[in-house]
Amino acid sequence: MSKTNPARGMRDFLPADVRKRNYVIGIIKEVYESYGFEPLETPAVENLETLMGKYGEEGNQLIFKILKRGEKLEEALSSGGNASVNERALSDLALRYDLTVPLARVVANNKNELPKFFKRYQIQPVWRADRPARGRFREFYQCDVDAIGSGSMAVEVEQISAVTAILRRLGFDDFIIRLNHREILSDILDTAGVPPELQGDALVAIDKLDKIGAEGVAKELSDRGIADKSAEMLLGIFEETRKIVEDGKDINRTIVGNLINIVSNEVLTDVGRILKYAAGCPVQLDPSLARGLSYYTGAIIEINVADLAGSIAGGGRYDALIGMFGKEQIPACGLSLGLERILVVMDERGMFPPEIAESTPADVMVTIWSEETTSESLKLASDLRQAGLRVTVYPEPDKLGKQIKYADAINVPYVAVLGENEISEGNVTVKNMKTGEQETLDRHHVSTIVVGRLG
Amino acid sequence: MSKTNPARGMRDFLPADVRKRNYVIGIIKEVYESYGFEPLETPAVENLETLMGKYGEEGNQLIFKILKRGEKLEEALSSGGNASVNERALSDLALRYDLTVPLARVVANNKNELPKFFKRYQIQPVWRADRPARGRFREFYQCDVDAIGSGSMAVEVEQISAVTAILRRLGFDDFIIRLNHREILSDILDTAGVPPELQGDALVAIDKLDKIGAEGVAKELSDRGIADKSAEMLLGIFEETRKIVEDGKDINRTIVGNLINIVSNEVLTDVGRILKYAAGCPVQLDPSLARGLSYYTGAIIEINVADLAGSIAGGGRYDALIGMFGKEQIPACGLSLGLERILVVMDERGMFPPEIAESTPADVMVTIWSEETTSESLKLASDLRQAGLRVTVYPEPDKLGKQIKYADAINVPYVAVLGENEISEGNVTVKNMKTGEQETLDRHHVSTIVVGRLG
Repeated sequence: MSKTNPARGMRDFLPADVRKRNYVIGIIKEVYESYGFEPLETPAVENLETLMGKYGEEGNQLIFKILKRGEKLEEALSSGGNASVNERALSDLALRYDLTVPLARVVANNKNELPKFFKRYQIQPVWRADRPARGRFREFYQCDVDAIGSGSMAVEVEQISAVTAILRRLGFDDFIIRLNHREILSDILDTAGVPPELQGDALVAIDKLDKIGAEGVAKELSDRGIADKSAEMLLGIFEETRKIVEDGKDINRTIVGNLINIVSNEVLTDVGRILKYAAGCPVQLDPSLARGLSYYTGAIIEINVADLAGSIAGGGRYDALIGMFGKEQIPACGLSLGLERILVVMDERGMFPPEIAESTPADVMVTIWSEETTSESLKLASDLRQAGLRVTVYPEPDKLGKQIKYADAINVPYVAVLGENEISEGNVTVKNMKTGEQETLDRHHVSTIVVGRLG
Repeated sequence: MSKTNPARGMRDFLPADVRKRNYVIGIIKEVYESYGFEPLETPAVENLETLMGKYGEEGNQLIFKILKRGEKLEEALSSGGNASVNERALSDLALRYDLTVPLARVVANNKNELPKFFKRYQIQPVWRADRPARGRFREFYQCDVDAIGSGSMAVEVEQISAVTAILRRLGFDDFIIRLNHREILSDILDTAGVPPELQGDALVAIDKLDKIGAEGVAKELSDRGIADKSAEMLLGIFEETRKIVEDGKDINRTIVGNLINIVSNEVLTDVGRILKYAAGCPVQLDPSLARGLSYYTGAIIEINVADLAGSIAGGGRYDALIGMFGKEQIPACGLSLGLERILVVMDERGMFPPEIAESTPADVMVTIWSEETTSESLKLASDLRQAGLRVTVYPEPDKLGKQIKYADAINVPYVAVLGENEISEGNVTVKNMKTGEQETLDRHHVSTIVVGRLG
């Protein structure tokens, strides 16, 4: 007898889970498509070399690697003693780690098939050999939207607008879209006198402002060799922002006003455009927003929901990534929604509509009276399906009480009882499982009446 | 610069492909749900031990195995010299190889959560390290429907009926559902005097009847040590069936008549029930239908379409498989639709509806005249979306000709031109990309009119 639990950090999704996941994914798809984003799917398995070196040292380690097979494996194992038999030699393939690198590969590989502006969405699982923890899994879905080929700020705005529409459709009304720009960060760092070679380190520290507070960041900046005076100045700028947000008056304009002497006009113009075009979305400037990834070159975006640590979506402009796979640099910008986090918050807040939360496998269950009447029951089920109902059939003749009990267990709202009397009289007895009421209906009217009752 | 093609035997699906796949998957889901089947999803990655030994010797080799990580890998590599460092020691996880074994694991693992009759569908990719060939990929989708917990023939019939409904909805009208029963095969083998220990071998040979013909099978039977007299008798029975089918009169009843002296009454009763209950489906008895898998215990089903070598769906009853993961045997029956083959046939025959085949990313593209009017264009796009239209926006100000050319390239049926004149006059010029016609419309009526034109 084998073990029956899923592998570590992996999850089985039973029907009630799948329904919730599909409900959210369905809305994400619908909204992305309404914005003209096109669906793309890439294989779960990529060549190892496609992924290695794209996610930093830690990423390299977290990539699930697939063992070579047959002769190639034997070759790797027999070549030159144990010392040289390492991970890299034993593996040729790997599991998808995110949806951005595969997109860059596809764009480079299909240059002639794809339009010059390529807007795609992609909703697929990714795998990371991370230590599993609460809310952190080794297989999880990403819902990415990216636009390739244009440097216009209208691109950022369409994505902000689409994600806003998705979150509102799902019932979120308390999210904030934090916006920053890579050059705002570097201009602030320059102004504070952080030398270029330490700016990467400084960003890693600043990224933790939400988690460890100003004091924690100050300590980390000092540990990373950044002068106290620079740290003080940096944190002073961010503290000012915090106060402006707390004050709540004309936040974005006030923050821009404070940045005018620090940040180039060009960047402030771009940021201003995003704020203007995205007027209907809850965008809020945050000059301290860094995000971990080093590949951003322009706008940096993160979406937060009240009482959820961490973000529910994030992304930005990465004009240099596609070039890793092709001959030319192509501008690009993308946002990624975290499906698992959205589901956690929606579950906690009870945000699923009743028909999803109730998770019924069918609208009606048809009973089977005897072997002889099985055809009649299957026929009735078929007729009810013709009327658009979802219909399950109790699979075998059994005591009526047991059939009703099963219908109750699977949460079906109506049972269509087809006993000997009903068949001989051309009737069906319909039982409402919520109220317990029963009524005997003409067989030809059952579907119309049940459809009506279900609303 | 990295290689940009997908890994060997893997495929990228560009938008036009994804739309076709989603169209077929959507119909499969909808029909399965109308029969009360519930969605289940299992992880792509399973513990290696869950999969090993479930698919025969060849299957074991075709399973993609994932390399152990960190300390465990070091341990495996350093333990006892090269001789003992083998595939099995280096790997702890593996990629899903089919959807049936994970189902058996889930059923055993969730006995108390699942209803006593569990009807599930599952549409997910599986991975096999097979040699890629025309139509054979290393990542492909299976669309499985299974019912756990009942031995009633109504189960087989509901699945046959659901798959028939799916194929008809997709536009197939020339498929045959071949039906056999494991015990018909073994009773025929007994009658022909094939000793029990050679019956497995005989089935492997019989399975090839379609491919290599009666003469080929006779040779293979002989090679496998089956007496010429037995082979002759076996092939005689199958030849009779072939003639009955060719004759075309009352096929199933004639075949049953021929089997009465060979096959037990009980089995013929079961088969008779399937034929009776599934009266609306093109079911045809075929006593030679073997299918490779050894785990079938009752009905064996395969669906064929004219001019496609191989089957488009297959399955049967496997009352002993779930027991491999649990303490008790639980009856089960399932059918699996081959998505990739369905897509191949539908493509060849041009069976996709026009809106899928045309693969448009949006109903309307809105132009951008200048940086200053970008907000107006985004606003128009947003209004059109409110009316239910799918709307893309050209991402930046550009010459109108280039914008129209792009709309043509991405196959959008309407372009909404919003130039300086249109804005100042509260109008939009709408260009029909098929006819080339242009009309200037009041901004407030654009959405209603375009919705109407699109039908």
